[in-house]
Amino acid sequence: MKAILSAEAETQIQFHHLDPMDIVWHGNHSDFFELARVELMDMINYGYPEMKASGYGWPVIELKVRYARPMRWRMKIIVRADLVEWENRLKIKFTIRDAATGDKLCSGHTVQVAVDTTTGEMQWEAPAILREKLEPFL
Amino acid sequence: MKAILSAEAETQIQFHHLDPMDIVWHGNHSDFFELARVELMDMINYGYPEMKASGYGWPVIELKVRYARPMRWRMKIIVRADLVEWENRLKIKFTIRDAATGDKLCSGHTVQVAVDTTTGEMQWEAPAILREKLEPFL
Amino acid sequence: MKAILSAEAETQIQFHHLDPMDIVWHGNHSDFFELARVELMDMINYGYPEMKASGYGWPVIELKVRYARPMRWRMKIIVRADLVEWENRLKIKFTIRDAATGDKLCSGHTVQVAVDTTTGEMQWEAPAILREKLEPFL
Amino acid sequence: MKAILSAEAETQIQFHHLDPMDIVWHGNHSDFFELARVELMDMINYGYPEMKASGYGWPVIELKVRYARPMRWRMKIIVRADLVEWENRLKIKFTIRDAATGDKLCSGHTVQVAVDTTTGEMQWEAPAILREKLEPFL
Repeated sequence: MKAILSAEAETQIQFHHLDPMDIVWHGNHSDFFELARVELMDMINYGYPEMKASGYGWPVIELKVRYARPMRWRMKIIVRADLVEWENRLKIKFTIRDAATGDKLCSGHTVQVAVDTTTGEMQWEAPAILREKLEPFL
Repeated sequence: MKAILSAEAETQIQFHHLDPMDIVWHGNHSDFFELARVELMDMINYGYPEMKASGYGWPVIELKVRYARPMRWRMKIIVRADLVEWENRLKIKFTIRDAATGDKLCSGHTVQVAVDTTTGEMQWEAPAILREKLEPFL
Repeated sequence: MKAILSAEAETQIQFHHLDPMDIVWHGNHSDFFELARVELMDMINYGYPEMKASGYGWPVIELKVRYARPMRWRMKIIVRADLVEWENRLKIKFTIRDAATGDKLCSGHTVQVAVDTTTGEMQWEAPAILREKLEPFL
Repeated sequence: MKAILSAEAETQIQFHHLDPMDIVWHGNHSDFFELARVELMDMINYGYPEMKASGYGWPVIELKVRYARPMRWRMKIIVRADLVEWENRLKIKFTIRDAATGDKLCSGHTVQVAVDTTTGEMQWEAPAILREKLEPFL
């Protein structure tokens, strides 16, 4: 699937990310994905405050992570987010690479849906506000 | 300082609490403290929803932790919370023991102050609601 | 896929699991999965110390989570782990339910592969030790 | 106490650091301290691998945190570490400031002691290796 929009973020592995195998605990990777998701949503000016103001929350309903190579202490990583679906739900693909070698460490995706903050109802189509925000990039 | 009120909670150390030294990362202990804090606040019917309804948030302004012995994988621990100050600020002392041996693993405290949710102002005296909730125990 | 072996664990949602939407941050669910994984591996006496002693680590190479309903503060949850694949890789399916209502909150799976701790080589077939441990349940 | 050595690190507050009060959960600040601790230990070439090679672990035996101002979503913060004690134990003071305003958000310290990795014995004096590493800065 072709990405409509892409963003990147860089960070570094810390001691508290590691488990007793000296590698990043597999539950931490979604926090790394978040770094690039935030940059991506910034590009369309639809971050958490704007979501809230628009009357919608966007909870994650699906997460997939494939771990290609272990991440170790002090490794610098580049997290890339590609927006690949937006008409009904927001699907973002993620790739994490070793900043030094370019090796792929991890890939995955999240799917988010809009929930009306007042009624609590899940929206089967992405609300108009998302299309407006994305308009310049379509 | 004599405790006005005490509560306990039990939990078990998991793999993701550990760091590469095979011991619980020192930043995780405040999450264990929380388990007993919640039980303590339950006793006076002043948990998070009741705090919110009362118009006050109670952020932690001080945390101290002393690590006596390392916590290891699958260790069962008992966390004890003792309410020791309440007139101006809420001070809770914590002790964590090995459930199997009774050995003290960790001690510490947190200090919380009331913040008016509307004005954002810190309260130099604990608001009346706290005294009311504590009345039966004084 | 029929489960060869199943295990359950119970826990409770805490304040620090929540994000500003008042629901559990989607990155925390893999920590809940872990609670039941540990119980499952206990049943075949192949927990982390036994893995290490056997000369293999078992890193997670794939994680999938589907979030059906939000988890909220103090909700008691039951995490179920079903072992569904073991011949080449270890695949465990997870289901999280609301302990009070039985409602499904979340489902998912992890895939783990054996890695020889000495050579660092990934094993394309599960090592003999796993079959031995599973023998009584096949 | 005068600092023998100082280091700084910069990071940014993310959504998963926040609790339902829209501020950073107080248990997360020790992870921020770690960012500057690592930079500090780098300056003397005594990071985790060098510690391990020297035959000593350096567990934290005391943590203190004072929370001056709440940290909010996307705030850029500067974490400063000052090494203030090293003869018997390693005491590092930490200060976190808002990168935009310079406001102090948080201060604290950790105390670490050397533990002989072979015998597991706590060292009442810092081992010779630490003095050697610090020599150029004394």
